Amino acid sequence: MEGLTLDTLVSLAKRRGFVYAGSEIYGGLAGTFDYGPMGVALKKNIEQLWWNRFVATRDDMYGLDSSIIMPEAVWKASGHLEGFTDPMVECEKCKHRFRADHIEGEKCPDCGGKLSAARQFNLLFPVEMGAASGGTTTGYLRGEIAQGMFVNFKNVIDSFHPKLPFGLAQSGKAFRNEIAPREFLFRVREFDLMEFEYFIRPDMWEERFEYWRKEMWAWIEEVGIDKEKVHELEVSADDRAHYSKRTIDFEFDFPFGRKELYGLAYRTDYDLARHGEASKENLTYLDEETKEKFVPHVIEPTFGLSRTVLAVLASAYREDELGGEKRVYLALPAAVAPVKAMVSPLLKNKPELVAKAREVREMLRKVNPAIAWDDNGNIGKRYRRQDEIGTPFCVTIDFDTLEDNTVTVRDRDTGEQKRVAIADLSSTLF
Amino acid sequence: MEGLTLDTLVSLAKRRGFVYAGSEIYGGLAGTFDYGPMGVALKKNIEQLWWNRFVATRDDMYGLDSSIIMPEAVWKASGHLEGFTDPMVECEKCKHRFRADHIEGEKCPDCGGKLSAARQFNLLFPVEMGAASGGTTTGYLRGEIAQGMFVNFKNVIDSFHPKLPFGLAQSGKAFRNEIAPREFLFRVREFDLMEFEYFIRPDMWEERFEYWRKEMWAWIEEVGIDKEKVHELEVSADDRAHYSKRTIDFEFDFPFGRKELYGLAYRTDYDLARHGEASKENLTYLDEETKEKFVPHVIEPTFGLSRTVLAVLASAYREDELGGEKRVYLALPAAVAPVKAMVSPLLKNKPELVAKAREVREMLRKVNPAIAWDDNGNIGKRYRRQDEIGTPFCVTIDFDTLEDNTVTVRDRDTGEQKRVAIADLSSTLF
Repeated sequence: MEGLTLDTLVSLAKRRGFVYAGSEIYGGLAGTFDYGPMGVALKKNIEQLWWNRFVATRDDMYGLDSSIIMPEAVWKASGHLEGFTDPMVECEKCKHRFRADHIEGEKCPDCGGKLSAARQFNLLFPVEMGAASGGTTTGYLRGEIAQGMFVNFKNVIDSFHPKLPFGLAQSGKAFRNEIAPREFLFRVREFDLMEFEYFIRPDMWEERFEYWRKEMWAWIEEVGIDKEKVHELEVSADDRAHYSKRTIDFEFDFPFGRKELYGLAYRTDYDLARHGEASKENLTYLDEETKEKFVPHVIEPTFGLSRTVLAVLASAYREDELGGEKRVYLALPAAVAPVKAMVSPLLKNKPELVAKAREVREMLRKVNPAIAWDDNGNIGKRYRRQDEIGTPFCVTIDFDTLEDNTVTVRDRDTGEQKRVAIADLSSTLF
Repeated sequence: MEGLTLDTLVSLAKRRGFVYAGSEIYGGLAGTFDYGPMGVALKKNIEQLWWNRFVATRDDMYGLDSSIIMPEAVWKASGHLEGFTDPMVECEKCKHRFRADHIEGEKCPDCGGKLSAARQFNLLFPVEMGAASGGTTTGYLRGEIAQGMFVNFKNVIDSFHPKLPFGLAQSGKAFRNEIAPREFLFRVREFDLMEFEYFIRPDMWEERFEYWRKEMWAWIEEVGIDKEKVHELEVSADDRAHYSKRTIDFEFDFPFGRKELYGLAYRTDYDLARHGEASKENLTYLDEETKEKFVPHVIEPTFGLSRTVLAVLASAYREDELGGEKRVYLALPAAVAPVKAMVSPLLKNKPELVAKAREVREMLRKVNPAIAWDDNGNIGKRYRRQDEIGTPFCVTIDFDTLEDNTVTVRDRDTGEQKRVAIADLSSTLF
């Protein structure tokens, strides 16, 4: 919706149980958020859709779930200990900190004080682990999930003998000590990523880069992100990460501006080569036909899952008028909607309606468990509650149902209602 | 299987891509593990089964996904800053560290040196977060996932107005700075939990405790854990956690001994009361019928997900003889098996067999994407590979298939083969 503000989204997210501030009763912890019942359902649905599309149904993709804590050696080899930094400035007066590249002018935006010179601030969170041999060992919470795939390249080769091209995929948490977390789920310290490393022969990179670029657009459409608001940005050599030879950012018009949503990077053989050197393990690939041995190159599509949740919510948010009243609804694709349908008896004090409605609901639940029940308040209010969480259909059981086994099916987007035979209900809804 | 050793399981897990040591190419990071393609499928299936059983299909359960990093105030109120400790001793000679309660005798098991007096070692991992106002704030990686549910109690009440009894549920990572990680997935520093906090009126606790105890047994059966190897242990007052008035441990006969698998605890109103006091937020529940206001009590069933993976693998592991040859197979329930069926053309160099097999596979994939393809080596070897990852059925397309549209379906557990019409295949397998 044009003119949608972040405040509106944040407020809906809290009211309807999508997203709460992290540890909110203690005033929140900057840069952390807790997903409520609707948010966890939405996030799980998105993740499942992604996994099905890119991993489970593809023979060239291998799923992983690697550890969040990884040793210093990994981050040294990957270049993150040195290069995973943001430029930080500090106000000499009020001590507030800012990202130098987010500041306009030379004065503190909070108090007008003088800002320090920028210094590089590393975003990795160190964790001190007790060592059984005494003292401690420093590990790091992963700043990106990619490294878990590179360090398991050899394991997957040994277990499965995949042929190039093939990919390793995972979804999971990553952590960054952001200098100034802000913009809701956008810039946070703890977030969810979905990503794969797609290993190729070096001469294939341009072709595969194009292939994944198209696949990312297909995903954007499937998950319910407004394509009109997504823009490719060719990242210049100066702005690219240290490992990348070409990067496209997929930016989205968030309520707070056009910002990075996804990335597509050609990481060359940088990571495998570095890990091969540092670990002394053989991270080459043997082509059994040509007997060639080489370090594969990598195309990396990255999908921020937390940012996807935000972009999907922003894309789905609608306000309109229905029956003379203003209403808010989320036009979510059925595949990601937390609730697929709500079933409701017209009146809650009529046992025969309630019993019939329960029966219909149990029938639908055999197809999909995400069928809600609501018998609170009048039917109009029930519809509006479901609109706000993006439930595609509401099914109402009334006295006619008892006569002719038809129900009212109400469409979320149009508000239109039609009579459907219970026997046809499942094929109408799913 | 009687006599199963942990080494045998670890070796199978690595060979077949279930579980690898964390950051293995760097020599591993103690207490961390990476799930490979089969392991992530198994783990996801278990988690999904749990979520469906206890959350998605229940009207009294609300899902959550709260942050891993939580502020100091949470862990102070919950008692973990003070009480979440293990007794540690250190060898004065070789400096190796041990859990005092795991040591027999008074000498270092590694070098025979003198051991220090035991001191309490806190298991929470602190994380220093940059504060926008300068300096740092200390957060902690959650040592249990329960606190994320207690701090969101009020949010869920405000968004959904649930009626008692109801539960908050989540699954996710927890972290403990174990003094001596060991026994594969059993005692680790980073692990997965599934848990819910079930809020009740205080006078209901005994009845609900019994209810969840039975539900936990039903789950144990459904997920494929050998019931004969599970034993309830009534935890004595001295051994219970600081918040608990009654705890039952569900112990499992792991290859390395009888150890805790799950727990069922009556946490009273300890956590909500403490958080209410510390945060000054109103964490009471208003009973709309009686107008009574009180802090609900809690029954907490905890399911270690990493430990479930280990117990399921240990329960499923079998060795037998088939066709005169020794074989290894995993008798996994179909619901959790990483691959539901493997489809294979008898010969890979016969295009008509390959084409027909591809067609059958695509047909099955419309029902379930987890249908593998294997045309490497002879058919016997393909069966054995699937046996080791626990695939319930193998489907082979041969020349008869081209004539009469029947295929060979081979059963994992018995090795028996029968002809099945392609039209009946889906109902035979799923």
